[in-house]
Amino acid sequence: MRELRVAMLGQGFMGKAHSNAWRQVSHFFDIPYRIRCALVCGRDEAALEPMAARWGWESTSTDWRTAIDRSDIDAVDICLPNHMHAEVAIAAAEAGKMVLCEKPLAMNAAEADAMAAAARQAPNLVWFNYRRVPAVALAHRWLKEGRLGEIYHYRATYLQQWGPDPSRAHVWRMDPAHAGSGAAGDLLSHLLDLALWLNGPIASLSSAMHTFTPGRRVDDAVMGMARFANGSIGTFEASRFAIGCRNRNAFEIHGSKGMLRFNLERLNHLEFLDATEGDEQQGLRDILTGSEFWKPGHIIGYEHTFIATLAEFLRAAADGAPFHANFEDGAAVQRLLDAVSVSAESGQWLEV
Amino acid sequence: MRELRVAMLGQGFMGKAHSNAWRQVSHFFDIPYRIRCALVCGRDEAALEPMAARWGWESTSTDWRTAIDRSDIDAVDICLPNHMHAEVAIAAAEAGKMVLCEKPLAMNAAEADAMAAAARQAPNLVWFNYRRVPAVALAHRWLKEGRLGEIYHYRATYLQQWGPDPSRAHVWRMDPAHAGSGAAGDLLSHLLDLALWLNGPIASLSSAMHTFTPGRRVDDAVMGMARFANGSIGTFEASRFAIGCRNRNAFEIHGSKGMLRFNLERLNHLEFLDATEGDEQQGLRDILTGSEFWKPGHIIGYEHTFIATLAEFLRAAADGAPFHANFEDGAAVQRLLDAVSVSAESGQWLEV
Amino acid sequence: MRELRVAMLGQGFMGKAHSNAWRQVSHFFDIPYRIRCALVCGRDEAALEPMAARWGWESTSTDWRTAIDRSDIDAVDICLPNHMHAEVAIAAAEAGKMVLCEKPLAMNAAEADAMAAAARQAPNLVWFNYRRVPAVALAHRWLKEGRLGEIYHYRATYLQQWGPDPSRAHVWRMDPAHAGSGAAGDLLSHLLDLALWLNGPIASLSSAMHTFTPGRRVDDAVMGMARFANGSIGTFEASRFAIGCRNRNAFEIHGSKGMLRFNLERLNHLEFLDATEGDEQQGLRDILTGSEFWKPGHIIGYEHTFIATLAEFLRAAADGAPFHANFEDGAAVQRLLDAVSVSAESGQWLEV
Amino acid sequence: MRELRVAMLGQGFMGKAHSNAWRQVSHFFDIPYRIRCALVCGRDEAALEPMAARWGWESTSTDWRTAIDRSDIDAVDICLPNHMHAEVAIAAAEAGKMVLCEKPLAMNAAEADAMAAAARQAPNLVWFNYRRVPAVALAHRWLKEGRLGEIYHYRATYLQQWGPDPSRAHVWRMDPAHAGSGAAGDLLSHLLDLALWLNGPIASLSSAMHTFTPGRRVDDAVMGMARFANGSIGTFEASRFAIGCRNRNAFEIHGSKGMLRFNLERLNHLEFLDATEGDEQQGLRDILTGSEFWKPGHIIGYEHTFIATLAEFLRAAADGAPFHANFEDGAAVQRLLDAVSVSAESGQWLEV
Repeated sequence: MRELRVAMLGQGFMGKAHSNAWRQVSHFFDIPYRIRCALVCGRDEAALEPMAARWGWESTSTDWRTAIDRSDIDAVDICLPNHMHAEVAIAAAEAGKMVLCEKPLAMNAAEADAMAAAARQAPNLVWFNYRRVPAVALAHRWLKEGRLGEIYHYRATYLQQWGPDPSRAHVWRMDPAHAGSGAAGDLLSHLLDLALWLNGPIASLSSAMHTFTPGRRVDDAVMGMARFANGSIGTFEASRFAIGCRNRNAFEIHGSKGMLRFNLERLNHLEFLDATEGDEQQGLRDILTGSEFWKPGHIIGYEHTFIATLAEFLRAAADGAPFHANFEDGAAVQRLLDAVSVSAESGQWLEV
Repeated sequence: MRELRVAMLGQGFMGKAHSNAWRQVSHFFDIPYRIRCALVCGRDEAALEPMAARWGWESTSTDWRTAIDRSDIDAVDICLPNHMHAEVAIAAAEAGKMVLCEKPLAMNAAEADAMAAAARQAPNLVWFNYRRVPAVALAHRWLKEGRLGEIYHYRATYLQQWGPDPSRAHVWRMDPAHAGSGAAGDLLSHLLDLALWLNGPIASLSSAMHTFTPGRRVDDAVMGMARFANGSIGTFEASRFAIGCRNRNAFEIHGSKGMLRFNLERLNHLEFLDATEGDEQQGLRDILTGSEFWKPGHIIGYEHTFIATLAEFLRAAADGAPFHANFEDGAAVQRLLDAVSVSAESGQWLEV
Repeated sequence: MRELRVAMLGQGFMGKAHSNAWRQVSHFFDIPYRIRCALVCGRDEAALEPMAARWGWESTSTDWRTAIDRSDIDAVDICLPNHMHAEVAIAAAEAGKMVLCEKPLAMNAAEADAMAAAARQAPNLVWFNYRRVPAVALAHRWLKEGRLGEIYHYRATYLQQWGPDPSRAHVWRMDPAHAGSGAAGDLLSHLLDLALWLNGPIASLSSAMHTFTPGRRVDDAVMGMARFANGSIGTFEASRFAIGCRNRNAFEIHGSKGMLRFNLERLNHLEFLDATEGDEQQGLRDILTGSEFWKPGHIIGYEHTFIATLAEFLRAAADGAPFHANFEDGAAVQRLLDAVSVSAESGQWLEV
Repeated sequence: MRELRVAMLGQGFMGKAHSNAWRQVSHFFDIPYRIRCALVCGRDEAALEPMAARWGWESTSTDWRTAIDRSDIDAVDICLPNHMHAEVAIAAAEAGKMVLCEKPLAMNAAEADAMAAAARQAPNLVWFNYRRVPAVALAHRWLKEGRLGEIYHYRATYLQQWGPDPSRAHVWRMDPAHAGSGAAGDLLSHLLDLALWLNGPIASLSSAMHTFTPGRRVDDAVMGMARFANGSIGTFEASRFAIGCRNRNAFEIHGSKGMLRFNLERLNHLEFLDATEGDEQQGLRDILTGSEFWKPGHIIGYEHTFIATLAEFLRAAADGAPFHANFEDGAAVQRLLDAVSVSAESGQWLEV
C-alpha cells in the first residue's frame, strides 16, 4: 500500500475539519493509501505547534511554499482564504501534487478556469462536501433514476444568522480582497453546486445582492431566480442575516412524480413524497438515512461529509478514475457566481 | 337589531364557503345585524335550487342583476369568475349596497381602481380571508409591536399541485378571458396581500412567469424577487405544479429579533423564534394558536377564516369604521400583479 | 323527508359543539331528515334564552323532563354532567326517542349496561366523536385491511394541562359526585374507545391513578399497561397535568408491516410508515388527510368531528342500520374504566 | 503528561465505537493523558488483526486475561457480552486498573454490586454514553436548576425494530446466558439510567415483559409504570418490535413550569416549552443544540457521545474527582432491571 504524504495549508476551523478527515478516513473506509499527515502550514506560529501536536501533523511551516517545495509531499490540501486558492493550487498542481481546495474554488471564473487547466493532470478536488451527505447522495441517485419524473421546481436556500454579530465584522470573510464576496462565495457556492449536481445546468438567471450592514463591503445576502436547462424553474437565497437559522442549507424539488426536501441542519434526514402512490396515502415522509459509518439509526454529523468525500477522492485518485466535485465543477460554480454578480449589478437576466 | 338581506352571486366552491360564513357568523360572534340569506344567483339552474335549499337561501335567480335590482337587498357577495368582478361590484356599489368580492379583486389595476372608487361610500371587502387566520393575525400583531425588530427577509410561497390534472384543464381558472391569469391571480394575490399586510409596501420587484403545460394560456407558476420599503428583501413563488403541496400558503420572516413562519396547511400553528433570548435556548417554537371559536387545543379549519372575516366586516360596517382588506387593499395587490406581469415580460426590475 | 325534532340538554361548551353539529349537518351531508332544533334545556335561565336565540333553538326549558314529556320530541341529545346521563337517557329511551349522549356514557359499568339495555330499541349514540376524524377513520380502515400486519404495540396518551388552574378547581368535572372520576372518565374514555375501535378488545390491564392537587377528590392523571386480545401490548396515559399539551389525544401503533401515528392537536394529519417498502425509503410520512367538507388541502377543525358523527348516525337511524359508537360501545369503555379503577386500587393486573 | 495505555476487550460494533472514542478524544478535548491504544483482545483471530491495524491498536490477544496480566496496561475497556462483564471488570479492578464497561453493567444486581465494590479504588465508568448528548446534558442542567418546576410526568421509550429480523435471531443478544435479558438489559438500561439521572430515584414500579417470537428466550419488549421519589409518575417502554423506529431513545417530561422532549434519532435537538411565558406564545421549541466539537449549526452524531463521555472520565480520573455514570450508577440501574423482572413475573408493584 502506497504512502500518501499530505500537507495541509490553513489552521482555522476548516483546518480542524480537514485534519479530522485525514485522521479518520482510514478508520471507516478501505482506502488504497497509507496516509501520513506530513506537514501543516499556517501563519499563526503560536497556535500552529499545538494544532500540529493535537492532530498529529508531523511538521509545521509558516510558509505555504514549503508544501510545494518539499518533494516528499504528495498531496496539498488548501484551507486558506479564497484569494490565495488560485496561486497555491496552481503551484501545487504544477509541482505534480494532488490538490484539494476549499470552496469557493476561486475569486472569479477566470481564476477558476486557470486552476482547472493547471490541475488537469493531477487528481483534484473542491470541497463541496455536502454532495456526500447520505441524504443528498440518495436524492441524487433517485433524481438520476427518474424517480421524480419531469422536474418543475428547484428551490434552495442557504441561511445563516451570524451576519449582524459585530465580533465577526473583521474576519477575512468580510474582506472583499480576501473573500471575493460575502454570502455569495461562502454560502451560495454550496447551494449552486448542489443545484447543478442534482438538477443540472442553469440556463439563465436573475439575481440581487444586498448588504444590510452600513459600511460592509461584501454582500450579506444574495437572492435570485433561475431557469434550468431541464425546463424547471426556481428561486435561491443565501444570507447571513436569516435570524433563526444556524446552518440551513436546504433544497426542495418538485417533479411530476414527487417531491424531495433536505436541510443540512437535519442532515441525517431526507424528506420524500411519492406522487405515484394513491392520493389518500401521499405524504412527505421523513427518511432517517443510514451511512457507511454506523448502523441504521446511529446518526452522523457535519464532519462525516468530509471523511466520506475524502475516501471517495482517494479511491478515484488511486484508480485514475474521475472524481466529482473537481476543479471543473468548482469552475462551473464560479461562472455562476460571476453571473450572479453581473446580474445583480445590471438587474437583468443573464444567459449562462 | 337591523336586518341585513344578503345576495350571494356564485354557486361553486366559493359559494359554499361563503354560504357557510353567512350561516355561521351569528353563531360564533356578536354581530349587529340579523342576517337574512335572501337571494343566491347562479347560472346552473339545475344545481341552484338544491344549493339554495341546502344553505337556506330564500330565493334564487339565474341573473346576477336581480341582486342589484332588488331594492330589498342590502349586501352583495360576489363569488363569480374574475372577469365579472368589476362590472358587478360597481353596479352593486352604485346601487348603494355593501359589496363583498372574491379575490383577486379584478382583472387588472385599472378595473380595481374603478371598483375602489365606486365603492368609496359603501362598506366593501375583498376576500383576503387568510388575514384572519389566528396565527396570521398574531404574526401581524407581533410585527406591528416590533417583536421581530428590523426586518431582513420576507420569503413566501403559495404552492398547489393540481396544475397537471387534465380533468381541470378547462375550468374557468385556466381561461385568461375569465381568470386574467393563472397562479398569479389565484395564488400570488393571496401571497402578496399577506406580504403587504405583514411587511408593508413593496418598493420594487422582478419576476418571471412560466407555463409548463403546452397550449395552456395562463401561467402555471410565477416567481420573483422583491425589495420592500422597510429595507427587507425576499423571494416569492406561486405554483400549481408544486407536486407534494396541497395548499401551502406559507411565509418566513427573519428580523433582527427573531423569526416567524406560517403554513396554511397547518393553519392552527404559528412558528416563532425569539432571538432576544439566550443562545442556548433559542429554537423555533410551534405555537398551537387559539381562536374565538373554541377552547385552546380545539382547532379550527379553512372555513373559519371566512366567518371571522365576515364578523369583523359586519361590525365595522355597522359602526362606519374602517375595514381591511377592502377594495383599496385589493387594488394595491392588483397593481403588484400588473407589475409582476410587466416585469415577467420585460425581464427587468420595476419600481412599484 | 321526515322532520326530526331535537331536544338538547345542556348549555355549556358541549352544548355549543352539539348545537353547531345540528345546525351544520344538513349543510355538508345529505341526510334523510329535516332537522328542527325544537328545544334546549338548561338550568342557567339567564343564559339559556340568549343561547337558544343564537343557535335557533325554538323553545327552552329549565327542566330536562320537558324533553321527555313532550311527545313531539323525536331525539334527545344529552350534554349534561355524567351523573345525570343514566337517568335521562333511560327516560328518553323508554319514551321511545332516539338518544344521543356525551361521554363517558355513565358513572360506572352498571349504569352503562342499564342504559344500553334501555336503549336497545331506539337509535342511540355515545359521542365518541374522534372516531370520525378523517385521519382516525383512515387508520381504522387500514388496520381492518391488515395494512399494518400483526400488531405489536398500541401506545396512547390523552394529555391536557389545565389541571393546576385554580380557576377551574370547582367545575363539575372536579366533583366525583357529578363526574365520577377525573382524567379517567373525561380523557381516558376517549383514549380507550379509540383503542378498542382500532385495536380490538383488551384482555387484561394494570393501572394507577394519581392526584397531584392536595384535597382534590378526582384523579388528575391515570396510567396503565394493557394486553390486547390480538396479542399486542401497550401503555396508556391520560392527564390534566401534562404541561405543554393542550389537547394531545394521540396514539402510535406498530405492526409487522408498519406504523401509524395520530395526534388530535394535528387532526388533519395521519402519520404512516410502510415497512413493506425497501429499507432506504422507509420513513414516517405525514399525510394531510382530506374530508367530506372541503377540497384537499383545506383543513377542518374540532367541530367537524361532531358533524360527521351526527350525519352518519342520522343515516343509520333512518335505515335501521347499526351505528357505532353506540351505548354498547360506551358500556364497553365503561367496563374498562371500572377495571382501571379497581386495578389502580389493588395494584394488580385484571382480566377484563 | 502521563501516558495511558489502554486495552480494549471486544471487537464488534461497540469495539468500533470505543476505538473511535480513544482515537478521537485528544483531538477534540484537552485531556491529561497521552493515550496509547496498547492492546485489543478478541476471539475472532482472523478479524482481530485487521481491526487492530485499522484503528492502531498496538498489539492483540485472543485471551482477555492478557489485558489483566500485562502490568503495563493502565485501563481496561470492556465491550464483551454481558455475562463476562463481572468477571473481567473485577479482575481488572483488582489488578489496579481503570475499568470502563459497556452497559448493562452486569447480569443482575448482585453481580453489579460486586463490581462496584471491587472498583471502589479505581476510576470506573459504565458506558451510559447518552448522558453526554448535548441535548440531554442541557435538559439535565435545566432540571437541576428547577427550570421545569415540580415534575409531574416522566415518560420514556426506547424503541427499535430489528426484533423480527431472522438473520439476527442467533446473535448473543438473543441468548439469555450471554445477555441476561433482551430489550430490558439492552435498551431499558439506557432508558432507566437517563430517568434516574434526569428525574431522580424511582420509588416503586410495576412492569410486564413480552416475547413476540415463538421460542425466543429473551424479552422482545418490556413496559412499565413508575412512581418517582419526587412525586412524579410515568410509563416506560423498550422494544425491539417497534416497527418504524430505528433508534428512538426518547423522553418527555412535564413539570409545573414547562415541558422537555428528546429523541436520540434527532440527538442534536432538544424540545422545550416554557410554561412561564404568556399563554399565547407558548409552544414547543426545537432547539438545535451546540456541542464542544464544532460551531453552532454543525451537528454531531452517535459517536460523539462516546468521545465526550471519555473526555470527562479521563479528566476526572486524573483529578481523582467523582465521575458519573460509574459502577454505582450501573448497579442502580441493575437493581431496577431486577425489579422490572420480578414485577413482570408477579404482576405486582414493587417498592425499589
